[in-house]
Amino acid sequence: MSNSLVEQLGYPPDTKLLIVHADDLGVTHSVNAASIKALESGAINSASIMVPCPWFPEIADYAKSHRDVDFGLHLTLTSERIYYRWGPVASGDKVRSLLDENGYLHHDWTAATKIDPREAEMELRAQIERAYAMGVRPTHLDSHQYRLDSTGKELFEVALRLAHEYKLPFFVTRDWFADFPYLAKSLGPDDVVIDHTITIEPNVPPAKWADFYKNAIRNMQPGVTELVIHLAYDDAEMRAATRERDTWGAAWRQRDYDFFISPDFRQLLQDQNILLITWRQIGNRSQHK
Amino acid sequence: MSNSLVEQLGYPPDTKLLIVHADDLGVTHSVNAASIKALESGAINSASIMVPCPWFPEIADYAKSHRDVDFGLHLTLTSERIYYRWGPVASGDKVRSLLDENGYLHHDWTAATKIDPREAEMELRAQIERAYAMGVRPTHLDSHQYRLDSTGKELFEVALRLAHEYKLPFFVTRDWFADFPYLAKSLGPDDVVIDHTITIEPNVPPAKWADFYKNAIRNMQPGVTELVIHLAYDDAEMRAATRERDTWGAAWRQRDYDFFISPDFRQLLQDQNILLITWRQIGNRSQHK
Repeated sequence: MSNSLVEQLGYPPDTKLLIVHADDLGVTHSVNAASIKALESGAINSASIMVPCPWFPEIADYAKSHRDVDFGLHLTLTSERIYYRWGPVASGDKVRSLLDENGYLHHDWTAATKIDPREAEMELRAQIERAYAMGVRPTHLDSHQYRLDSTGKELFEVALRLAHEYKLPFFVTRDWFADFPYLAKSLGPDDVVIDHTITIEPNVPPAKWADFYKNAIRNMQPGVTELVIHLAYDDAEMRAATRERDTWGAAWRQRDYDFFISPDFRQLLQDQNILLITWRQIGNRSQHK
Repeated sequence: MSNSLVEQLGYPPDTKLLIVHADDLGVTHSVNAASIKALESGAINSASIMVPCPWFPEIADYAKSHRDVDFGLHLTLTSERIYYRWGPVASGDKVRSLLDENGYLHHDWTAATKIDPREAEMELRAQIERAYAMGVRPTHLDSHQYRLDSTGKELFEVALRLAHEYKLPFFVTRDWFADFPYLAKSLGPDDVVIDHTITIEPNVPPAKWADFYKNAIRNMQPGVTELVIHLAYDDAEMRAATRERDTWGAAWRQRDYDFFISPDFRQLLQDQNILLITWRQIGNRSQHK
């Protein structure tokens, strides 16, 4: 496949293709409700689901009755909050290296955290199997907090093995190749590589939220870009679940929701000749090879 | 101990003593927030916590910094909702009989569900151990959905064994002796038996909610009574978590909250010469033997 991903998808090489992708579905009801609203209003066209989280059954039920929606699995090895937490899908004794002293998935990984890649693979396979068993038919895989991309070659190869086994594309972008040289080395010729990604970071002040996204969209380059966003309502549940820090918290997610639900965003895509694409189309791209 | 529980507690035998007890803390943020508000306003004086639930860390953190509060553990072997669920604290492989095909604690137990009492004991010990490890110092144990009281002698004896091991009273009332004859047979002379319990049932229409409680309180007999209630706010999280049925749902719990937070309830206790008692006082009653 020497053609670019855009060409494999049947477009001229200078086309700007965009996936507008919400992460973290399943984590709370607030995230589910806001993300479903954004999907149904056309504000986003793709999303991924955290299987170990308590609200997974709600979004699995939705996915089962909305087969056209572009849902991936957001492979999860951490439980990053303090007052609201979840454990593994696999049997705890088999994935001890993934768990803290109370049996939850680690809050974070430090230099002292030794994640056993075989245990990570067992846990992630259990997540994928639970998703299929509960009626989800994922179009892609990606990694919560990019842990599988940014931690080292071994975990990245776990993700690739699962992607191959389940015949699903795994989200990786060439934007990360410079920082993580093992990515390009581990990828095979048939693996999907997204050209670019855009995601907002904590250094953007709330008042500049819309400006950040507008600039990023105006500066989009040809190729396939994934815009990674985090939707929820700034409500009692979400505030309580994220209250120990503002980053990716309730207000952050409400700002994302407010920007992407607005007609300005859709107008901007049109003005910039940006076309939407889904992971389902990427997964089916062989038809255009 | 031939004296009645009331006498063991240092009161004349015709005294009416009441525990106003909220169940299900830890299950959702909404339940935690409403129950904490009710504890702090004096509407309730005791509560119990579900350790396997996602919001357990929030209430454990509160319990740790509010050592005076009368918190028990609400031993949990089911995950009774549909869109929002939890698994075991013990390693899944060791407690298979407690789990459904997706790895959650059973939604319900039918005639076909064979619960292994040794697995139940292992799971409940894991729940108690996690609670202590995360800073909870429980004053008592009780059973979510009364599963440990009403399922048979073997599970009741699991509860008694754990109560003895951790030197905590386990909630059982003589009101249940007629329906479950093994209760009285299994209890030893040093086990606590509450005289009566009051809890509202689905056959009470919402408009009669306050009347039910007022009548029940006016009809209270001498002895120790536990009033078992279920608090939450009728908010987005709670509505979503309980939307498949009204029983013990969001509106039900808001009705409980509204009744017990009202000054009328406190006035009624005073008018009826009802005194409040906690599980901590019951656990310490040997001082009065």
